[in-house]
Amino acid sequence: MKRIKCKIAYDGTFFNGFQIQPKGRTVQAEIENGLKKLHKGSEIKIYASGRTDTLVHAKGQVFHFDTPLQIPLERWHNALQTVLPADISVIEIIEANDDFHARFDVVSKEYRYFVQRGRRIDIFRRHYRYFYPYQISVENMVKAANHCLGTHDFTSFCSAKTDKEDKVRTIYSIDIIEHEDELEFRFVGDGFLRNMIRILVGTLLEVGRGRRNSEDIVAVLSSKDRERAGHTAPGHGLFLWQVNYNN
Amino acid sequence: MKRIKCKIAYDGTFFNGFQIQPKGRTVQAEIENGLKKLHKGSEIKIYASGRTDTLVHAKGQVFHFDTPLQIPLERWHNALQTVLPADISVIEIIEANDDFHARFDVVSKEYRYFVQRGRRIDIFRRHYRYFYPYQISVENMVKAANHCLGTHDFTSFCSAKTDKEDKVRTIYSIDIIEHEDELEFRFVGDGFLRNMIRILVGTLLEVGRGRRNSEDIVAVLSSKDRERAGHTAPGHGLFLWQVNYNN
Repeated sequence: MKRIKCKIAYDGTFFNGFQIQPKGRTVQAEIENGLKKLHKGSEIKIYASGRTDTLVHAKGQVFHFDTPLQIPLERWHNALQTVLPADISVIEIIEANDDFHARFDVVSKEYRYFVQRGRRIDIFRRHYRYFYPYQISVENMVKAANHCLGTHDFTSFCSAKTDKEDKVRTIYSIDIIEHEDELEFRFVGDGFLRNMIRILVGTLLEVGRGRRNSEDIVAVLSSKDRERAGHTAPGHGLFLWQVNYNN
Repeated sequence: MKRIKCKIAYDGTFFNGFQIQPKGRTVQAEIENGLKKLHKGSEIKIYASGRTDTLVHAKGQVFHFDTPLQIPLERWHNALQTVLPADISVIEIIEANDDFHARFDVVSKEYRYFVQRGRRIDIFRRHYRYFYPYQISVENMVKAANHCLGTHDFTSFCSAKTDKEDKVRTIYSIDIIEHEDELEFRFVGDGFLRNMIRILVGTLLEVGRGRRNSEDIVAVLSSKDRERAGHTAPGHGLFLWQVNYNN
């Protein structure tokens, strides 16, 4: 048996999220079906760094699986791509140590969230950008974001649907970058709770728009009350950008 | 009656082309259905600058129609957008002269064609870029493109399915621009035949790749034989960019 570590990108538009569901097309099911074809009908289970929700994209999702196949490593890339649909792309595939685990070994993750500004929605970006046509103060958003850095209980920024008991996470950095008619949010942390990035972005945008004060975030965090935070920004603006492991 | 001139963008991915067909979703049918709603069930026919094929996009398609409605011009934009699907966007809507015609009054048109290069297809651009992962000489393509400028019989660069007798057209400019991992072709002309841009791009790419000589284009043009030209580049890389009228 070999343990294979694989990095993929996917366009979340036509997926019902990453994790296998009773209904709807999922990234995990497509990959496991593809692997089953390569393994002549044997079921192969994959273990990912974490799930992503409906409509959420990935540039660098990572998963591992074990295989008895003796395919040379350089052929794995094409072999796997051949059995995957057009909206999943193999970025890198390597042999990992036997004890590597794509979820438990995560050191940090980066998510990026993209907002389209301006008067009118650009239909060519409609599946990849959150259209937010309001005047925004980036300066006030940066102030608010800085209050979220470091280790906090993020209960206020977490969907009630989470299955995680421990809501303490560490955010290492939040960068807010202005492009021509876009805003890009970059979050790096040791891990993120369900909807956490999307609620952070929704809340920061409300600060940017002047609907709340940048200092307000401190009270929202300490309240541990989801109702105090802002709206959940839609999934289609979010990209799981990179998953970092030791070495 | 007022004559309305409207500029729209559409994402061709999920359309069976512009023109109404017995089967499949079309841009024209969606717009006429929307206008029918605004006109309380009356049929309104639209006249576009020309059709676009399946998968082809538009940034600046233009059409006109006549309406008895007394909607103030500033409200037309939102009124029409409201009855259109998410993959058609109203860019501009104005009142035109009674004798304006979106097809007959065209002075020139600009099409742009986009190619993605590199080792691997970028799934986030898969509906908007032609993936062509070969080494290319832009210099040789520019030489070949220059032979196509001016007035020629473009029979060699036209689909047999055309309904046009006269195959003489004038190309005013062809620009080939290199971006990071993309090539952009810009064509301005008085009009283009069916598949003409796509066959030109396919042929130019074959020149760029070294499969044909840049001088070869001269013989292809004068042969008036479609078999002599290159492959038809796929529709999803093509955008109807702009339609120009007098004033």
